[in-house]
Amino acid sequence: MSRQPAEEQRLAESWDINAAAWTQSVREGLIRSRQLVTDRAITEAVLRRRPTRVLDAGCGEGWLARKLTSQGIAVTGFDGSESLIADAQQHGGGPFFTLSYDDFCAQAHVLGEPFDVVVFNFALLSEELSPILRAASQTLAPGGCILIQTLHPVEASQGQGYENGWREEHFSGMGEGYKAAMPWFFRTLSSWLDELRRAGLDCVALEEPLHPETGRPASLILTAVPRPQI
Amino acid sequence: MSRQPAEEQRLAESWDINAAAWTQSVREGLIRSRQLVTDRAITEAVLRRRPTRVLDAGCGEGWLARKLTSQGIAVTGFDGSESLIADAQQHGGGPFFTLSYDDFCAQAHVLGEPFDVVVFNFALLSEELSPILRAASQTLAPGGCILIQTLHPVEASQGQGYENGWREEHFSGMGEGYKAAMPWFFRTLSSWLDELRRAGLDCVALEEPLHPETGRPASLILTAVPRPQI
Repeated sequence: MSRQPAEEQRLAESWDINAAAWTQSVREGLIRSRQLVTDRAITEAVLRRRPTRVLDAGCGEGWLARKLTSQGIAVTGFDGSESLIADAQQHGGGPFFTLSYDDFCAQAHVLGEPFDVVVFNFALLSEELSPILRAASQTLAPGGCILIQTLHPVEASQGQGYENGWREEHFSGMGEGYKAAMPWFFRTLSSWLDELRRAGLDCVALEEPLHPETGRPASLILTAVPRPQI
Repeated sequence: MSRQPAEEQRLAESWDINAAAWTQSVREGLIRSRQLVTDRAITEAVLRRRPTRVLDAGCGEGWLARKLTSQGIAVTGFDGSESLIADAQQHGGGPFFTLSYDDFCAQAHVLGEPFDVVVFNFALLSEELSPILRAASQTLAPGGCILIQTLHPVEASQGQGYENGWREEHFSGMGEGYKAAMPWFFRTLSSWLDELRRAGLDCVALEEPLHPETGRPASLILTAVPRPQI
């Protein structure tokens, strides 16, 4: 699926390698921007859609699925990391499935569609997104939408050039025990919107939750819906 | 039209007060980002649409209209500043009309619609944009679009908070002879997209031309079309 198989493979593997550290970071609230802003922002964005069924794509250890389940929503989660899914399953709130994005593209139906919302919370880190987004689109119920929270591209690239490319996350300041850096594909705002359009989706809303300490955008939340057929 | 009449009035008046200085800055190429990036970016964005007729909204002294006219396109320009329109008319490339945005909203038809492209090049500086955008939308030919070039909100607000509000432009580094600061309404990216939607427009493309010296976005170019009626 990708022109950068080495990075894509390291990206996938890093989640199993770092699973214990990541689960601890999330569950102990060690990632400050998540604690202060972005956890709440994505939760509220999902709840505003008043969904009955939600797919948490790239769910990790499952905090968002549990949060939404506690609000009476039926949530299914999947993630490429078997270790993270094991962590998720221990805490309930699923069902949770181990499924790579390649598998999701080939057989999303195994997750039991349709969904009112498919949410990707900091979970789209690959170079090619449109196949994943297209697969997500095909699991949507009529009137459903895709919600994507990601680093704000313009803000996250301060001090660097602003162009698509692979970067490395070293998890500094996010807790202890990380054993591998994670490659991730930085993309510009233009590129995000291009990927949506390429997947047959229209971006119908764009939010920029502010970090209370800096007054700057802490993330970007995109709402996308299948393009109307005229 | 605005909740901030004092700023709106000072904004409008500043263009007459600063007309001579502005015309000199533009014609002598004193604004570096325009010279290096944004003049060409908006010209190419218009030409890519292969338009027959273009409306240059807030055309100022008329450089863009002249540039497009030289490519065989029929261009009409209008601006709220009588002084700038006088400068534009001296150099040809029009017709050019003195028309405030309030007048444009009330009687855009005097400009002789329809247009294939309505272009706003750094020309939307007011607090309320949706009435202006709606009026522009009503002058479009079938298949036509609105092109907006503006400061990149995230980039332009570095070192400051990121929220809508009035700011002051002092034209420093843009040449000599400016006699008044210009109030302008800073709006976030989210707010730009909200204004488009409020005007019944869909944003179908978003470009971020890069400044060659910094590798950072020099501007934002939005392409908007009337939302399809389903």
